[in-house]
Amino acid sequence: RTPCAHSKTLSALTGAKIWIKFENLQYTGSFKERGAYVKLSSLSDAEKSAGVIAMSAGNHAQGVAYAAQRLNIPATIVMPLATPFVKVQRTREFGADVILDGANLSDAAARAHHIADTQAMTFIHPFDDPLIIAGQGTIGLEILEDVPDLDVLVVPVGGGGLIAGIAIAAKALKPEIEVIGAEAALIPSMRQKLYADAEPSGYQTIAEGIAVERVSDLAAALLKDRLDDILLLSENSMEHAICLFLGIEKTLAEGAGAAALAAVIGHPDRFRGRKVGLILSGGNIDSRLLASVLMRDMARDGRIARLRLDMPDIPGALGQVCNLIGEQGGNIIDVSHQRVFSAGPAKQAELVVAIETRDRVHMAQVIAALTASGRVVTVLDSETQKDDKS
Amino acid sequence: RTPCAHSKTLSALTGAKIWIKFENLQYTGSFKERGAYVKLSSLSDAEKSAGVIAMSAGNHAQGVAYAAQRLNIPATIVMPLATPFVKVQRTREFGADVILDGANLSDAAARAHHIADTQAMTFIHPFDDPLIIAGQGTIGLEILEDVPDLDVLVVPVGGGGLIAGIAIAAKALKPEIEVIGAEAALIPSMRQKLYADAEPSGYQTIAEGIAVERVSDLAAALLKDRLDDILLLSENSMEHAICLFLGIEKTLAEGAGAAALAAVIGHPDRFRGRKVGLILSGGNIDSRLLASVLMRDMARDGRIARLRLDMPDIPGALGQVCNLIGEQGGNIIDVSHQRVFSAGPAKQAELVVAIETRDRVHMAQVIAALTASGRVVTVLDSETQKDDKS
Repeated sequence: RTPCAHSKTLSALTGAKIWIKFENLQYTGSFKERGAYVKLSSLSDAEKSAGVIAMSAGNHAQGVAYAAQRLNIPATIVMPLATPFVKVQRTREFGADVILDGANLSDAAARAHHIADTQAMTFIHPFDDPLIIAGQGTIGLEILEDVPDLDVLVVPVGGGGLIAGIAIAAKALKPEIEVIGAEAALIPSMRQKLYADAEPSGYQTIAEGIAVERVSDLAAALLKDRLDDILLLSENSMEHAICLFLGIEKTLAEGAGAAALAAVIGHPDRFRGRKVGLILSGGNIDSRLLASVLMRDMARDGRIARLRLDMPDIPGALGQVCNLIGEQGGNIIDVSHQRVFSAGPAKQAELVVAIETRDRVHMAQVIAALTASGRVVTVLDSETQKDDKS
Repeated sequence: RTPCAHSKTLSALTGAKIWIKFENLQYTGSFKERGAYVKLSSLSDAEKSAGVIAMSAGNHAQGVAYAAQRLNIPATIVMPLATPFVKVQRTREFGADVILDGANLSDAAARAHHIADTQAMTFIHPFDDPLIIAGQGTIGLEILEDVPDLDVLVVPVGGGGLIAGIAIAAKALKPEIEVIGAEAALIPSMRQKLYADAEPSGYQTIAEGIAVERVSDLAAALLKDRLDDILLLSENSMEHAICLFLGIEKTLAEGAGAAALAAVIGHPDRFRGRKVGLILSGGNIDSRLLASVLMRDMARDGRIARLRLDMPDIPGALGQVCNLIGEQGGNIIDVSHQRVFSAGPAKQAELVVAIETRDRVHMAQVIAALTASGRVVTVLDSETQKDDKS
């Protein structure tokens, strides 16, 4: 059972009354172990001793392996060849037999199904299974036990298992509660299935955990009369939500885990003044991806910028520019300069400098000082400078 | 009152039985509000209406401002000029009057003392005060109430207020409990004061929260008969501990906040099999610093490396090298190459490429493949490659 806490700061920020259900604090770092445990518990003694098999490069792998270990069931997990070693190792530590096979998820899934068929093992689907859905639904029971007067639950949507389980459980306890899905705009598979008004655009989303092309038919059928809406989320909004969870709540969310917060921030009118339960579904995010998300959020906040400036190609010129930036309190984090490709005269060099400042206002001061000194300054990266957080 | 939880994974990793006291989950992100609240509550009505003043660029500023807001006391906080805007804004949001003054902490402190003297306000010291120390001591009471059978507490040491308070409280309840300090090796001020066997080396430490040159005489006197030891910590060990808290516990620790975990990891024999309470004192760390810590930890784990390779200066050469790295599953994250400064023949170019791999073994495979193709490969950054995690 994971904690559920009120956030004063996120409430002030969003205008809603925010509670967070911390599924990232599950032992395996995500909610997946709930469904896996319920499913594996339900197997007959014969099925248990024959063992289970699953395919996953992510949270489902650890969820099944851990549930199997607790129930003393032999587990085999097929993971694609390129799965990071830490994930393989973590899954093996739960006692599972890991088979690395398949260039991608489909190949690995085919291998897992083949093994299940030939060796009479039970295949554990990550979401398209009534018992998996029921297991995830325990989150709905817990959150309403902790905070019975919630008006609305916001739940990440991938294959649909999590939100279908929560919707059934929560609406059984409290029929008037709203259940709203949070889905990545790049892969809006459930929105398309239920409302037929969204198209996948096929790009990589940061919300890997909910990047599902084919949703569960069962979950979709269960959601038909129970779901109040699905909100689609930009990549920026999920990246920003990761940073807010980290900076304000000191808690690590993966992209999918931050989707519910992103939905509330992106639609303030819809949630203002209401009691909102956010499901922070998981916290398993790669270090390098997290580092990039932090830097990109700083760029969007105007704390980091890349500037291009003209500079006379004479000794001392670079030092002068750097000194000026330093005097203004700007911190230079990258410098490059070149002479060959600039549009200006040959005696002119072109400098590109990445600067960190205290905030957007401070950045404007540094740029103004450079301009006042006679340099022509162009701010690069206007794309990431946009305040698109919705 | 903050949560205190057992960590199965950190216990398995360290060989000790680890409990964590999450002071990073305080409203202001650190334990500082405890002492501030106790101190401010103790003021007379006249002192309260005259107001309080403090100097801090960090956690103490928010701790005092928040306590003052709760107690309805006017608060002035002097912050150095270069304080990031977010910290200023956060402190102002607690209703404090923020004065930005002073090129550094000493100047800002002088200004704060001057205002305190001339305007008859009470100066609130961050640690050298019996009531501040008593306030921080409440952590000791709570952790022993939650886990009465702890054998040892490991506590970050800066000015000494936190550890002195905890040592008094914990040893009053349980005289046989050990209290061990965790101090940055770069600024071992308390170790030097109590044991006279450590010298500061004056570098910037990541543990800003405990980078104190002059410790509290009062705290040192109180610790004399109560402290069992102080362990000194390398920068690498604290950086690694930040990454472990994030990756395993999904919780954000600042450098000082990760010191206690770093101490246990660095001295496994001392803690093996014992019940250890770690004080995670705070979670306020700058985004860019955190991003750097994550990347540096990946480099130390061998997941990122910079390689220098010789390359014939002919069309197609770069593509060949990049293709080979890609075929091996390595991800190129930075490339530079140059011709002017290489030691080899003029028809040779020098390439420096930063690569991300799944893990150290995978990195070795990529390097082996490059070598087998005829390239001469040198791994740069052998400094950060060292496995110095103690």
